[in-house]
Amino acid sequence: MSYAIGVDLGGTNLRIAAVEERGTLLEKVTLGTQVQRGREYVVGQMTDAIRHVTTKYQDHGKLIGIGIGVPGFIDMDTGTVRESPNLPGWSNYPVHKDIESRLGTKVILENDANAAAMGEKWLGAGRDTDDMVMYTLGTGVGGGIIMAGRLWHGMNGMAGELGHHTVLPDGHICGCGNHGCLEQYASATAVVRMAREAVANGLSDALANASRNDVEFSSKVIYQLAIQGDKAAQEIFNTVGHSIGIAVANMVNALNFPMYVIGGGVASAWDAFHNPMMEEVRKRSFIYRVTAPEAVAAGQKRTIVTRALLGGDAGLFGAARLPMVVNGESSAPAAQSKADTPVAGTR
Amino acid sequence: MSYAIGVDLGGTNLRIAAVEERGTLLEKVTLGTQVQRGREYVVGQMTDAIRHVTTKYQDHGKLIGIGIGVPGFIDMDTGTVRESPNLPGWSNYPVHKDIESRLGTKVILENDANAAAMGEKWLGAGRDTDDMVMYTLGTGVGGGIIMAGRLWHGMNGMAGELGHHTVLPDGHICGCGNHGCLEQYASATAVVRMAREAVANGLSDALANASRNDVEFSSKVIYQLAIQGDKAAQEIFNTVGHSIGIAVANMVNALNFPMYVIGGGVASAWDAFHNPMMEEVRKRSFIYRVTAPEAVAAGQKRTIVTRALLGGDAGLFGAARLPMVVNGESSAPAAQSKADTPVAGTR
Repeated sequence: MSYAIGVDLGGTNLRIAAVEERGTLLEKVTLGTQVQRGREYVVGQMTDAIRHVTTKYQDHGKLIGIGIGVPGFIDMDTGTVRESPNLPGWSNYPVHKDIESRLGTKVILENDANAAAMGEKWLGAGRDTDDMVMYTLGTGVGGGIIMAGRLWHGMNGMAGELGHHTVLPDGHICGCGNHGCLEQYASATAVVRMAREAVANGLSDALANASRNDVEFSSKVIYQLAIQGDKAAQEIFNTVGHSIGIAVANMVNALNFPMYVIGGGVASAWDAFHNPMMEEVRKRSFIYRVTAPEAVAAGQKRTIVTRALLGGDAGLFGAARLPMVVNGESSAPAAQSKADTPVAGTR
Repeated sequence: MSYAIGVDLGGTNLRIAAVEERGTLLEKVTLGTQVQRGREYVVGQMTDAIRHVTTKYQDHGKLIGIGIGVPGFIDMDTGTVRESPNLPGWSNYPVHKDIESRLGTKVILENDANAAAMGEKWLGAGRDTDDMVMYTLGTGVGGGIIMAGRLWHGMNGMAGELGHHTVLPDGHICGCGNHGCLEQYASATAVVRMAREAVANGLSDALANASRNDVEFSSKVIYQLAIQGDKAAQEIFNTVGHSIGIAVANMVNALNFPMYVIGGGVASAWDAFHNPMMEEVRKRSFIYRVTAPEAVAAGQKRTIVTRALLGGDAGLFGAARLPMVVNGESSAPAAQSKADTPVAGTR
């Protein structure tokens, strides 16, 4: 059976997967990304690993192509990375063409959050819908919008920058220059920052101990304290939930999509932020209220706000999916069939 | 030449226009909507006026159909008004079928803000773009999203509820149950409310005089005081601008569309709120910053935030447009040609 290669190029790990067109994983390889050794080294790591996999599966079926998810803006016209803070030296470098010429196969570049949305749409939470918004809560907050079964790129390939949605106009300053971006309240980085603020304000001995003793004072540790009952840690995840809720409600009101998916590492703390998130969504979107699962009869069109299903593999599977859907044609049988959202100007 | 009838059914006026398919107005009729006399009376007014117009132009060309813009939610599946606070007695009434049977021609129902977006896309600010967001700042704040040349309805026909975008999480309470909706800061109603608050706080003698002496203490009067230099009135339009700016920035970040159009009565105060609006858009959207007209070379893809061009006629022309674009086919030559936004998941 034909298969594709997906690459998830992060600041920490470089992961490569061979995935059949029906979605079955053949093999997954994880390497540390040695970003500090320079771009040339990382591209070498990547092409070596891809060659290893393609050689191994050369008798398995046709290689459809390679999809690569990278953090940062992708210029869709030229296939270059426009700006990537976590991958210094990659700006304006034609990754896509360079790797195509090295490997002799079609290569498609995509923003990592868009790739994750593609993965969840293909094999995860969104597999039965054609219209979804996905939030990836990681080091930063990324987003991807899938409309009529395809990624919506916008005019410059920059659409889906949902981490910079203003949720609190006079809120915490963001690296983008704005105040109160979602990313400042719902990323792993924000969770740790809020925990350090709580420690500085003497709000929690448990958080203070953890911040001193844990080698890595991470959002995971803070989540563990929250579920163990630490009030300050719980308050942090309340803030995470309220912030996502405001952002999601605004998208529900604008797009009236059937599905909103929350993924990325922080989504593991789902039970700690789900209630405050849904409280905001309900309060701030009457569209949600009249279309909430509990408000409509079975079989009626519902608005679902849900957790991502693929965990850290969403971007990897999504990247592998990219070469399968070039020009909108799909070779997967199940996922792309339902189209319950009218696009026409009239009915 | 073929023509269509557009109907703009508001709480105050009922307007009917006959418009040729190239966009030329044949005739426009304005009647007071006698809502208090009941639905049957208003439908009678409407069908009488339409019959008068169609009889007059029966030798002019083929009647393509009738489009009706109404305030409130439209159930796209059944063609009924789902809820309309300004038109009591219209809920769940099959307007579309009733009028079709009375007049014997195709009738298409649409939310009034969507119809306005359609009008601006056809003949106004958005005529050279296929993707735009429109805000209608009137008694309330409505919105319409045009994507790939067509209205985006969402799964229940409720998309584009941009007046209920949260711009200030703990802000003024809204009729929808939320706090801090755009509508609470950028509608004509909100302008008057903020002016009354300023009067109550003793902030402006001029506003106090106007509120006592003018039969109608309207957003227009408050705008006049603002341009005459009244600080409190200016501050109100600063708030209008900051609020729209936050909302627009969020949409730019999500959709990366080329155009955002501000229409409705309050848009007449453009010079009083334009600067604070653009200040927010610039601050809160780096997508805007890198694609602003002043940031890109001539001919490059730009993000335009602009005023609507058709004034109060946007909804009327848009309604007439509806029957012309059923099933997405268009008979207009000029407007629907440019498609510079890639929709494909890959390039």
